[in-house]
Amino acid sequence: MTSRGGTIVQKYGGTSVGSAERIRRVAARIARNLDSRRGLVVVVSAMGDTTDDLIELAYQVCDEPSDREMDVLVSTGEIISSSLLAMALRHLDVPAISLSGPQAGIRTDTRHSKARITAVEPERVLRELTRGDVVVVAGFQGVNPEMDITTIGRGGSDTTAVALAAALRAERCEIYTDVDGVYTTDPRIEPRARKLTDITYEEMLEMASHGARVMHPRAVELGEVYGIPILVASSFREVPGTLIHGGSTVEPVNKVRGIAHDFDIAKVTVRGVPDRPGIAARIFEPLAEAAVTVDTIVQNASVDGIADLTFTVSRGELPRALRLVEPLARELGGAGIVTNDRLGKVSIVGTGMQNTPGYASRMFRTLYDAGINIELITTSEIRITCIIAEDRVKDAVRALHEAFHLETSGPDSELEAAQTRRARAERAPD
Amino acid sequence: MTSRGGTIVQKYGGTSVGSAERIRRVAARIARNLDSRRGLVVVVSAMGDTTDDLIELAYQVCDEPSDREMDVLVSTGEIISSSLLAMALRHLDVPAISLSGPQAGIRTDTRHSKARITAVEPERVLRELTRGDVVVVAGFQGVNPEMDITTIGRGGSDTTAVALAAALRAERCEIYTDVDGVYTTDPRIEPRARKLTDITYEEMLEMASHGARVMHPRAVELGEVYGIPILVASSFREVPGTLIHGGSTVEPVNKVRGIAHDFDIAKVTVRGVPDRPGIAARIFEPLAEAAVTVDTIVQNASVDGIADLTFTVSRGELPRALRLVEPLARELGGAGIVTNDRLGKVSIVGTGMQNTPGYASRMFRTLYDAGINIELITTSEIRITCIIAEDRVKDAVRALHEAFHLETSGPDSELEAAQTRRARAERAPD
Repeated sequence: MTSRGGTIVQKYGGTSVGSAERIRRVAARIARNLDSRRGLVVVVSAMGDTTDDLIELAYQVCDEPSDREMDVLVSTGEIISSSLLAMALRHLDVPAISLSGPQAGIRTDTRHSKARITAVEPERVLRELTRGDVVVVAGFQGVNPEMDITTIGRGGSDTTAVALAAALRAERCEIYTDVDGVYTTDPRIEPRARKLTDITYEEMLEMASHGARVMHPRAVELGEVYGIPILVASSFREVPGTLIHGGSTVEPVNKVRGIAHDFDIAKVTVRGVPDRPGIAARIFEPLAEAAVTVDTIVQNASVDGIADLTFTVSRGELPRALRLVEPLARELGGAGIVTNDRLGKVSIVGTGMQNTPGYASRMFRTLYDAGINIELITTSEIRITCIIAEDRVKDAVRALHEAFHLETSGPDSELEAAQTRRARAERAPD
Repeated sequence: MTSRGGTIVQKYGGTSVGSAERIRRVAARIARNLDSRRGLVVVVSAMGDTTDDLIELAYQVCDEPSDREMDVLVSTGEIISSSLLAMALRHLDVPAISLSGPQAGIRTDTRHSKARITAVEPERVLRELTRGDVVVVAGFQGVNPEMDITTIGRGGSDTTAVALAAALRAERCEIYTDVDGVYTTDPRIEPRARKLTDITYEEMLEMASHGARVMHPRAVELGEVYGIPILVASSFREVPGTLIHGGSTVEPVNKVRGIAHDFDIAKVTVRGVPDRPGIAARIFEPLAEAAVTVDTIVQNASVDGIADLTFTVSRGELPRALRLVEPLARELGGAGIVTNDRLGKVSIVGTGMQNTPGYASRMFRTLYDAGINIELITTSEIRITCIIAEDRVKDAVRALHEAFHLETSGPDSELEAAQTRRARAERAPD
């Protein structure tokens, strides 16, 4: 067996390893599909609610736990699940060994609770792979130059898996989760949503950043940088998932690949601000310093040197944003602030849309026909987003899914569509 | 502050850190008594039932968890409590940092689940002490030459504490536990039992090995080798404990320091074996190989080249011992095996007893006067042990406690005895 080349990195999320019973099921699946000619690295999250329980314990002990100690505390969750999965594999006569993030060579910077991976030193992993062991790695954690344990923040275990795959030059990274792939849109909103066979990194990033929470964008970006194909599939059922990769997609006919949506949008319009250099900076710098995540920014055409500046934030961040922007608006002599916190957004995503005319107009026409008013429009190279009323988001998703014929994938799609229907029928509710 | 010399190492057991509330109480106590001129290292066990819960989880996943993975799993328990205590201390403005066993430089051999400490490399601990931090160390664990985590078996956290104290040349090691010191005998049996102000390592070892489960003998031995004074005291109440040390005791008058006892003794007598070289070895070698712990061994005087060989084991090990010894007894042509599994033992312990006549005879006379038959007698330099019927152990403890006047410590004892009575009255039930 060579430990390079053919290596596969798999990741199982918190729901997938949420109980002793589920850990045994994951082990059985690994044993069943094991290819002894390939190295296998399995990254695991903490079991179900373990992380929340540990955090609660910390807050029972003090009001403001230090980030360093919090990392020491919560990182035990992934260590526990990694050792249990290794035990379960050995019980099935699959040689296996668990490694903590530090042991697996995940080096990070010093920012506790949101560390960035600075390097992966996979010597220990390679040694265990060469011995023929399945290497079970505790996700979400690494070690900083002080040799203290760190956690790597949101999307942690996905990022661990892709980073390890990159360092091992693995053939593929497989993310097993409680959804069975990337759908054209959320099947809970549009029952005719179809699972995609594949999608490009960029499309996935746009889907992920605009409300499709299958994978954290950070892990997708890392996969793109290192060219690691990522398979997203169900950890509960053995059905084909969705492959995220860099090449052109298998389905070239329909350039819209999916509909993303988000119910949680608040809009702030600063009216009548002078249209001169530096005004936008003065408004957005304090927001950035306060770590308010601003999503869409639109400035309308200036009339007589006066413009309206509009941006969106999540609903929870609206009060904080207003506290920062209101004094500035007064200072700038604007005509006041208008807000709307009952908004959502809907996006169509697909490589090459911008080079092909007609997608934007078809999107706007579809929303108009459904009687949905568009509050704001923004676009990227592979995405068109409309901000609309929150209570019309579902209607918009359904109308657009139909308008762009996403329930079928074109000429070759019949077999795939049948498979998708079957998969959906079997899908475990979550 | 110098980090050497004045350093104190404290250890808090699982009951002492059994909940968030108790961890906060331990932190408050540390904060209250903190002497900023001294370095302080605090070793913690896992919270209450954590270790048992983790072990149960392992057995839900597989029948025979590997020792290595079990060590990875259970060592998270101490890491959790160490981070929580560090958080609680910082909350009280006491600078504190948690370190895992590996970070604290506890090096061990490779025997998972029962590793021995091979070295302590305290550089990281010293660095944090120099910074003025209270260093909270996860007990019961270390790291082997493979850089894998190990656990150091029974008496683990006590042993971690004493080993760290030795490496740091600490002034003292303080073991805080759910008893408030070493008593002349078990106060649940003899209400007049008196807490000892101090006791020598050797006396403590005899007490510990013969049923007084205050501290694991292994940690006491380590303290003796490195000359670390060990204070055993209550983690719940701030009352004086018992100091274990190497010098002569403060109380030279009464050479019997305490009465140890054990309810769990089974006796095996192999009757009529030939009294010739090699017979004892043939009987005990298979027991040692099967890891049956043999306690007392007595061979009576030979009559016509035939002797009776008697040994004791714990009740639970009797069936295994018999399976091993019965075929041998037949082979040796003995007159059969007699067993008694309703036995216990009682010991008097005190330095210098053997050099002073009369202790043994007073013990035997006391038991005779109480109508208690002696089945076996064994002695060490500082101990005399009688094996007696299990249901007479309590009577024997009380009679001996009185016969050797252990309720008083001699001329200087009045103040101390009053203090002990008060302490006992306040003692939290456990």
